[in-house]
Amino acid sequence: MTEQRIGVAVVGLGGAVATTAVAGVELLRLGMRDLSGLPLADRRDLVPYEALVFGGWDLAPDDLAKAAHLHRVVEPAQLDTVAGPLQAIKPWPAVADPAWCRNAAGANVVPVGPLRDRVAHLREDLRRFRTGQQLERVVVVNLASTEARPDPATPVLAGLAAFETGLDRDDPAITPGLLYAYAALREGCPYVNFTPSLGADVPALRELAERDRVPVAGKDGKTGQTLVKTVLAPAFRSRALAVEGWYSTNILGNRDGQILDDPSSLASKLDTKGSVLDEILGYPVDDHVVRIDYYRPRGDAKEAWDNIDLIGFLGQRMQMKVDFLCRDSILAAPLVLELVRLVAEAARRGEGGPQEQLGYFFKAPMTRDGGPAQHALHAQEQALLRWLDAA
Amino acid sequence: MTEQRIGVAVVGLGGAVATTAVAGVELLRLGMRDLSGLPLADRRDLVPYEALVFGGWDLAPDDLAKAAHLHRVVEPAQLDTVAGPLQAIKPWPAVADPAWCRNAAGANVVPVGPLRDRVAHLREDLRRFRTGQQLERVVVVNLASTEARPDPATPVLAGLAAFETGLDRDDPAITPGLLYAYAALREGCPYVNFTPSLGADVPALRELAERDRVPVAGKDGKTGQTLVKTVLAPAFRSRALAVEGWYSTNILGNRDGQILDDPSSLASKLDTKGSVLDEILGYPVDDHVVRIDYYRPRGDAKEAWDNIDLIGFLGQRMQMKVDFLCRDSILAAPLVLELVRLVAEAARRGEGGPQEQLGYFFKAPMTRDGGPAQHALHAQEQALLRWLDAA
Amino acid sequence: MTEQRIGVAVVGLGGAVATTAVAGVELLRLGMRDLSGLPLADRRDLVPYEALVFGGWDLAPDDLAKAAHLHRVVEPAQLDTVAGPLQAIKPWPAVADPAWCRNAAGANVVPVGPLRDRVAHLREDLRRFRTGQQLERVVVVNLASTEARPDPATPVLAGLAAFETGLDRDDPAITPGLLYAYAALREGCPYVNFTPSLGADVPALRELAERDRVPVAGKDGKTGQTLVKTVLAPAFRSRALAVEGWYSTNILGNRDGQILDDPSSLASKLDTKGSVLDEILGYPVDDHVVRIDYYRPRGDAKEAWDNIDLIGFLGQRMQMKVDFLCRDSILAAPLVLELVRLVAEAARRGEGGPQEQLGYFFKAPMTRDGGPAQHALHAQEQALLRWLDAA
Amino acid sequence: MTEQRIGVAVVGLGGAVATTAVAGVELLRLGMRDLSGLPLADRRDLVPYEALVFGGWDLAPDDLAKAAHLHRVVEPAQLDTVAGPLQAIKPWPAVADPAWCRNAAGANVVPVGPLRDRVAHLREDLRRFRTGQQLERVVVVNLASTEARPDPATPVLAGLAAFETGLDRDDPAITPGLLYAYAALREGCPYVNFTPSLGADVPALRELAERDRVPVAGKDGKTGQTLVKTVLAPAFRSRALAVEGWYSTNILGNRDGQILDDPSSLASKLDTKGSVLDEILGYPVDDHVVRIDYYRPRGDAKEAWDNIDLIGFLGQRMQMKVDFLCRDSILAAPLVLELVRLVAEAARRGEGGPQEQLGYFFKAPMTRDGGPAQHALHAQEQALLRWLDAA
Repeated sequence: MTEQRIGVAVVGLGGAVATTAVAGVELLRLGMRDLSGLPLADRRDLVPYEALVFGGWDLAPDDLAKAAHLHRVVEPAQLDTVAGPLQAIKPWPAVADPAWCRNAAGANVVPVGPLRDRVAHLREDLRRFRTGQQLERVVVVNLASTEARPDPATPVLAGLAAFETGLDRDDPAITPGLLYAYAALREGCPYVNFTPSLGADVPALRELAERDRVPVAGKDGKTGQTLVKTVLAPAFRSRALAVEGWYSTNILGNRDGQILDDPSSLASKLDTKGSVLDEILGYPVDDHVVRIDYYRPRGDAKEAWDNIDLIGFLGQRMQMKVDFLCRDSILAAPLVLELVRLVAEAARRGEGGPQEQLGYFFKAPMTRDGGPAQHALHAQEQALLRWLDAA
Repeated sequence: MTEQRIGVAVVGLGGAVATTAVAGVELLRLGMRDLSGLPLADRRDLVPYEALVFGGWDLAPDDLAKAAHLHRVVEPAQLDTVAGPLQAIKPWPAVADPAWCRNAAGANVVPVGPLRDRVAHLREDLRRFRTGQQLERVVVVNLASTEARPDPATPVLAGLAAFETGLDRDDPAITPGLLYAYAALREGCPYVNFTPSLGADVPALRELAERDRVPVAGKDGKTGQTLVKTVLAPAFRSRALAVEGWYSTNILGNRDGQILDDPSSLASKLDTKGSVLDEILGYPVDDHVVRIDYYRPRGDAKEAWDNIDLIGFLGQRMQMKVDFLCRDSILAAPLVLELVRLVAEAARRGEGGPQEQLGYFFKAPMTRDGGPAQHALHAQEQALLRWLDAA
Repeated sequence: MTEQRIGVAVVGLGGAVATTAVAGVELLRLGMRDLSGLPLADRRDLVPYEALVFGGWDLAPDDLAKAAHLHRVVEPAQLDTVAGPLQAIKPWPAVADPAWCRNAAGANVVPVGPLRDRVAHLREDLRRFRTGQQLERVVVVNLASTEARPDPATPVLAGLAAFETGLDRDDPAITPGLLYAYAALREGCPYVNFTPSLGADVPALRELAERDRVPVAGKDGKTGQTLVKTVLAPAFRSRALAVEGWYSTNILGNRDGQILDDPSSLASKLDTKGSVLDEILGYPVDDHVVRIDYYRPRGDAKEAWDNIDLIGFLGQRMQMKVDFLCRDSILAAPLVLELVRLVAEAARRGEGGPQEQLGYFFKAPMTRDGGPAQHALHAQEQALLRWLDAA
Repeated sequence: MTEQRIGVAVVGLGGAVATTAVAGVELLRLGMRDLSGLPLADRRDLVPYEALVFGGWDLAPDDLAKAAHLHRVVEPAQLDTVAGPLQAIKPWPAVADPAWCRNAAGANVVPVGPLRDRVAHLREDLRRFRTGQQLERVVVVNLASTEARPDPATPVLAGLAAFETGLDRDDPAITPGLLYAYAALREGCPYVNFTPSLGADVPALRELAERDRVPVAGKDGKTGQTLVKTVLAPAFRSRALAVEGWYSTNILGNRDGQILDDPSSLASKLDTKGSVLDEILGYPVDDHVVRIDYYRPRGDAKEAWDNIDLIGFLGQRMQMKVDFLCRDSILAAPLVLELVRLVAEAARRGEGGPQEQLGYFFKAPMTRDGGPAQHALHAQEQALLRWLDAA
């Protein structure tokens, strides 16, 4: 397996999560011994982290050393060590549309043109990446800022044929995020969506992934507050402590937070957060409130405060408060690396379509039949390990 | 199954947990519909809660209506409803020894005598309970205040023969708690130890339980902070977030807290709390600090505050704080009811000795071979459900 | 002073704060010894609490025993003790206008008519109260749900003459809250506004209060989070700890919270909360975020969570978190009682217009010249005590 | 005032607080503009920070650059900037006695000898410092690890004559900390005790300070939890919210914390923390619990968690939780700098003996008559500012 080279084409390559992931791989190449945060570090049956080769698109033209420096996530001393390889990576011009992501802007863009031209451009990027870097396989990962969500009932998303006709007609419901996913699938590249945007999670693209047997996984990485929720809620259910209400607030100050200051992007995000609780508990929690607030002093260091109201024996009330002072990109980046290794493995096994066993990584996991997902973390972990061991 | 009557002989019948459990069963008899806090409420294969008939020992002579009133756990309006049946239950005189539990005192005691006389007295109590109340089976539950712990290397505890010789010789290492457990086993009564005291968890009594095929379960109910710990720690392990330190403090103001103000009782308690973390994580957490402080304003409403220091990807530090404002007896009482139903079921199946599948309920679960226990709550739950379904 | 009877005419008499205040006075009449929460309990120079006689308006027709029962603030046992006197108090029909307070509704309303008729009606209520109950003086207190705020630049509020012309012409900018304040002042009744609504805090009514020498005080009682803010912020300023950001969230589930679910009422509330911090610190805190969320499980038991980001020596960052689990009406009601005693004292001294020395009680204190107010709690307390001692 | 040079002779010069203070002054010399944390930065009537020249004793021989590096308090980039001047400062050998401070150890010690010899040695150090550096005045500041506390009723501490006889006889009750204070006073050096050790706060040394008109100030810097307590408690008193209980726990992982792991040092510390609350509130809080725990992951970044139980109107209970994630040395160092400036000012004014107006800086402020101190922060601040303005 030593000679393998797996390409990772990232949508949003200059962002905090992507630059952290790339810096991490470079530090591992240099012998970093601390494997904290990498859940599958001991799985020798997956491609090694060092096999990953990064490229991708971003609205900002900065090379990754400069981008990582601005995000202030990776420690300066660590960044210095890997400055060389990071400087060598420069994002490709991105396909953007301010109608779908208002607070995101940048100079490094593909000049606007018909949708079909944009798709062709993206596919060409992927082919050039594969051949230029002599890659065995390319995985596409969406780490871009959250898009607004098109009406899911739009006919153009309902099936592959309608979608392709929509491309021909420049249908306004087709967002840039859908274009990237479509281009990836048409190139046979496994596709991972770590954001709350739709990505490949529309009937049209699921149909394509199934047809061409390309693995897809998503959506919205489960890193902070939702991670905690899917750990605690199963315990409350187990002990029959009724959840009367759950109030969650998040404060974060990175670019992600700024994007979510736009209500339409926020709506996408809250949507993926919402149903988790009811599905785990088996009853609706009427008083489930989720807030996300942009608050600059936190920077990338997100804080999630939860208050949970519980009802126990004889109807008596109890409360739990959880304050998670976490680092958004530090939690997300290693999961992205594992997802790349895992969809590469799925592709190797020839398993296409939604990868249900990867629900462990997501707030809103895709299921094979589009039905409700398992959300309890421990059950997701068991499903993942069963799949790995079934190889 | 409607005609079945199961006796529950409680050591510490007048305490907060026991009176809450008894009041709860009486409220269920009267048709209370709220089953919150009862994990196995929907298991029809276990004896119904209404089949339970309570008796037991206490140092205080108060009837259970008066005792429950003093504990201020059950709501006054609920207590009024069940005042009649609670008044009818008066604790039997207890076997006590101030050498082993300094802060506990009371007037309702069996006059001191040789150990063999005490055992005979306790066995007679159990026989009278069974025949007097026409009970199919009697389960003994230890809910008494935490005892000091005898040196576990004392030869008298190392085997059944040595223990019985010790009884003959009035060996000072044989605590009252051990006497109750021995009496229960000799009467063939399944024995549950919900406290941090040794109970049946010494080689001598394990040997007896195995020999006579009597189910035993323990020890120390997992209700508050340790419950949270065994829910969160598996998630940190799963996500490879290294636990650098875990600081836990508890404040509580009920009789339990007062008992733990005595350092020798506290030592027993901390002992059962300590190893959980390392065993779940698979590595030692050097900076694991657990504090328990008696603080009257809390009353029975315990508060557990945890601070957890985590190390994630690239060695970066994160923190989580958990504040659990809980009700000690409200969490404990329903678990006691489930344990009674479960050891009765084990007895029905003829399964004696340590009931490893009941580890779900305990901070320091007994294992069949005395080896390390599974502590992760979800894994414990699965083991329990497998056992139930294997009937 | 024993024979004195002071009337308290409350706008919103059936609300949680008002019923708590009335129940408290009745309990004091019956000899309750606990004076917790009453800051001026030892001031013999003010009218005694027992001298207060309550009446007032409410949209709901329930007598105060029934209303208090519904709010679940006062303990049932205490309510039983004072059920008689509370049943005897029934709110007068209220003047309402759904245009200004959408979420408030009720059947006990004065049929809509010209503004001049409404004012006459309210004045007649106050006269009937005074003579019917043989009161020496009547104080009007606004405890009604928060109104939307009319454009403060509306000419009709800019001066008394314009306001009275507006009354003649049924100007739509004149809210019910302004009518109550105007009626009170015209009757010579000292007026206290404990809500974020405008009350008497418009130039027109300040002019009237000054002209007729009627004391007015407001606005928005300082009870929970803002109280904490005006205690901590002066300490940070004192120690030169720079406040980089302050994130405040409130969850509450009483009628007040429901009203604030309407964005126009919420805007009034946030407005009175906003400027406190900058004025205490002497510099603008750009990242000052205040959230209020309706969350039913809390009921009247509000919870305020604050996160404060501080910068200390050498630019190093620190954080403080404060979680205040408080009881809204329990904090507010005693302050209302003190305010009534204090404006009665001001009236006795012949001191009319805005009572600046009462800023201690308010989030947005009125000042004599309309300029910035002192917000630091300890400085406000000193000003109040100086005024009291200057008698 | 530009030519003034004030010497600061620190007991414990290599510690975290001292090295932070020295680094801070050097950064100010280099033009650092951020004056956060320095309460009196705008007082031009005090000596400028840049006039301070540092020397002092430490058990460890490391120069201050190395010592500061080990403490990890000052940012590496800042330390690099001032590495030169810090390297130039090397601690003088210290007078130590393991009997009084068990967990402190080091190689840089004055060989043990009679107490009189030790005093002579320390006085010689101070004289050499003054003349060698051409200092106008030398201030001695105690920042050493907390000592155990001798029996305060020991006759040798009761008066100056007894103390000096005790020196002659090598009385074992005379701790190293008392020797430093005595030596300072005999050299006419104003003395500041920022630690919980006795310092100059015994009758013998107060007598000396009064006699020779040397300013003394102490004891135990008020930086974290006690600071918060003396800010919140006055507000609770002001609002008549009765404090039913106050539970405080501290976790810290620096050398200070390690020292406090020794119970005799801890006792000194808890003693200075204890009485604050009762004196502010005016009644005893029976359930006031203070914990300090050594917890390595915190390092110098102390965390103080407080739970406060309050009783409000009608006897209803409320709670407040405060979690202060602070930096011990970052809070302490600037206060030390202000204290040096202030005792230098007192010396300039010829005001000797205990400096009561400096209570603002201390947990256990010395008063002129030894009576109870003012603890409320805002009142202390006002007293300090009055003194300053009285110049």
